[in-house]
Amino acid sequence: MARSFIRPAVAAMSGYVPGEQPQDRSYIKLNTNENPYPPSPRVIEAVRAAAGDALRLYPDPLANALRERAAQVYGFRRENILVGNGSDELLNLIVRACAGAGDRVAYPYPSYSLYDTLVSIQEGEPMHLPYPPDFSLPPGLAAADGQVTIVCHPNSPSGTPAPIAALRQLARTVSGLLVVDEAYVDFADTHALDLAREYSNVIVLRTFSKSFSLAGMRIGLAFAAPDVIAELLKVKDSYNVTRLSIVAATAALEDYAWMQQNVAKVRRTRGWLTEALCSRGFTVLPSQANFVLARRPGQSMQPLYEGLKSRGVLVRYFATPELRDALRISVGTDQEIDALLKALREVRQ
Amino acid sequence: MARSFIRPAVAAMSGYVPGEQPQDRSYIKLNTNENPYPPSPRVIEAVRAAAGDALRLYPDPLANALRERAAQVYGFRRENILVGNGSDELLNLIVRACAGAGDRVAYPYPSYSLYDTLVSIQEGEPMHLPYPPDFSLPPGLAAADGQVTIVCHPNSPSGTPAPIAALRQLARTVSGLLVVDEAYVDFADTHALDLAREYSNVIVLRTFSKSFSLAGMRIGLAFAAPDVIAELLKVKDSYNVTRLSIVAATAALEDYAWMQQNVAKVRRTRGWLTEALCSRGFTVLPSQANFVLARRPGQSMQPLYEGLKSRGVLVRYFATPELRDALRISVGTDQEIDALLKALREVRQ
Repeated sequence: MARSFIRPAVAAMSGYVPGEQPQDRSYIKLNTNENPYPPSPRVIEAVRAAAGDALRLYPDPLANALRERAAQVYGFRRENILVGNGSDELLNLIVRACAGAGDRVAYPYPSYSLYDTLVSIQEGEPMHLPYPPDFSLPPGLAAADGQVTIVCHPNSPSGTPAPIAALRQLARTVSGLLVVDEAYVDFADTHALDLAREYSNVIVLRTFSKSFSLAGMRIGLAFAAPDVIAELLKVKDSYNVTRLSIVAATAALEDYAWMQQNVAKVRRTRGWLTEALCSRGFTVLPSQANFVLARRPGQSMQPLYEGLKSRGVLVRYFATPELRDALRISVGTDQEIDALLKALREVRQ
Repeated sequence: MARSFIRPAVAAMSGYVPGEQPQDRSYIKLNTNENPYPPSPRVIEAVRAAAGDALRLYPDPLANALRERAAQVYGFRRENILVGNGSDELLNLIVRACAGAGDRVAYPYPSYSLYDTLVSIQEGEPMHLPYPPDFSLPPGLAAADGQVTIVCHPNSPSGTPAPIAALRQLARTVSGLLVVDEAYVDFADTHALDLAREYSNVIVLRTFSKSFSLAGMRIGLAFAAPDVIAELLKVKDSYNVTRLSIVAATAALEDYAWMQQNVAKVRRTRGWLTEALCSRGFTVLPSQANFVLARRPGQSMQPLYEGLKSRGVLVRYFATPELRDALRISVGTDQEIDALLKALREVRQ
């Protein structure tokens, strides 16, 4: 029952459905793109040291210690940086700050489905620009005239990057704001962070959930011009990030090499996983992320998803017309991927 | 400069300004109603134990371990409970789920100024019902016909409670949703949690930031009918609360006696602080929260606020017409309050 005090736009929504986070039994979890390797021991140590009486105090609303460190690491000033409760919150802030009822928000499709949810809550108008089969950047993004244009780079669920030159061209030609959602970019060959320096209408998003192995701590960064950051701050909850999350992310940046080593391992595994899936008859686009999209064009992957789940391997199945013939598989450890391939052999296909 | 891609309503806003969280030097911090006593040692222990490799994994989106525990402690079912990133996020979700452009949101005034910010972001219409000088519940709240009506109980910054019978009457007579924001209620004699059981249009909010000494971990709870919780879930970011926050709050509920002991100490200190301020010529309403509002009617308290700050004591000064003659002082330890009173004597008044 949708009560009268709920906004009709919300009552009509189904809400974003995150990937399964089963609490009942243990799975080989290849469904939500977590890093299979743990965070740096220095992060764990810093978090444990900070877990003391000071938890009674509010966090720094701006997380300046983390902003300072990120400014050094990425070559920005701290005024260019906003710290969020995961990049999900940053997307939320951007859509709320920019898109009102009836405003267009444009993005390639299929992509991260949270964009749809956020735009719906605002009663905005989602403009889906269909990806071609090779998931190259669809034409018409700038012409869609969005108040906000979002490109997930590399894209989820395809793992495909966009040429930086194309993103730069987009920054120049969109009528409003360009958001480059780089949640997975540490696993890629190139990134678009320079665009946040060069263009005052560009926000680049990063997260500590994937490459830094800190999904459980909820930290994201937005890079943009200081006056854009200032507008987003107005919409942000004051104390959006916990004391321990600030400590964890700051320590993670201080052991950047740890992240890079894990990324290198994931990229190696991604390479042979892609080959193994191709040799088993899947179509797999070369991925620049920590997951691959494995397709059997025209064939529903739901039975395979369920067969794998019953064998203790969780992968991501999207029950949409565009993606029902695909599974998104996070790159786990070599052992986990061996187990996946073994389970794949067992399931009748 | 407000860029063209920022919504005019946001560009025109000044944003909520939280109490100072100075990072430069140490103050006796009596300005943001933190608990002067640390969280339970069992909380610290549980957080440290959970700070390990599992931080690479996302939190449970619903925080069911905490919901289960809270359901037991407060006598609800888990479907009645939503876990938020502080009660600030819960207020944010409620306003976004219920109040669209032009919708009325009614609350007594002055109260928690975040309500104004949240309503402005939605382009809603804030209906301020002025508190009388004794801060009793203003008449006309139900007649204001809000899509949402909010009562802060006990109120900030006055510390005053509302009779539960009056809140019950309000639940029956408001046309929309009634939110009872009980951030400070563990310091009070009575609470309104039963209303969330009795009325399907009532949400009661609690937080771990005050009585449980966990402001740094950002955890709040909403209690309401399951179908109301389900609507709020649609608007919530999937992974809104960190793994360690869930662990901390669950452990805090398992050492409920620790919280109660700290509350008893704060209440004792509140008693003699109130008397000491009255004997120094302040008007102080009997507070049911972990702060007191000390007034000198008609006289600006800004010089006194600044004099105290220069002596290393931070209290809260609100530069508004209604509150410029008042200081909100958090109840610290006895030693901290002694230092406050000493500083008060030193400042020329």
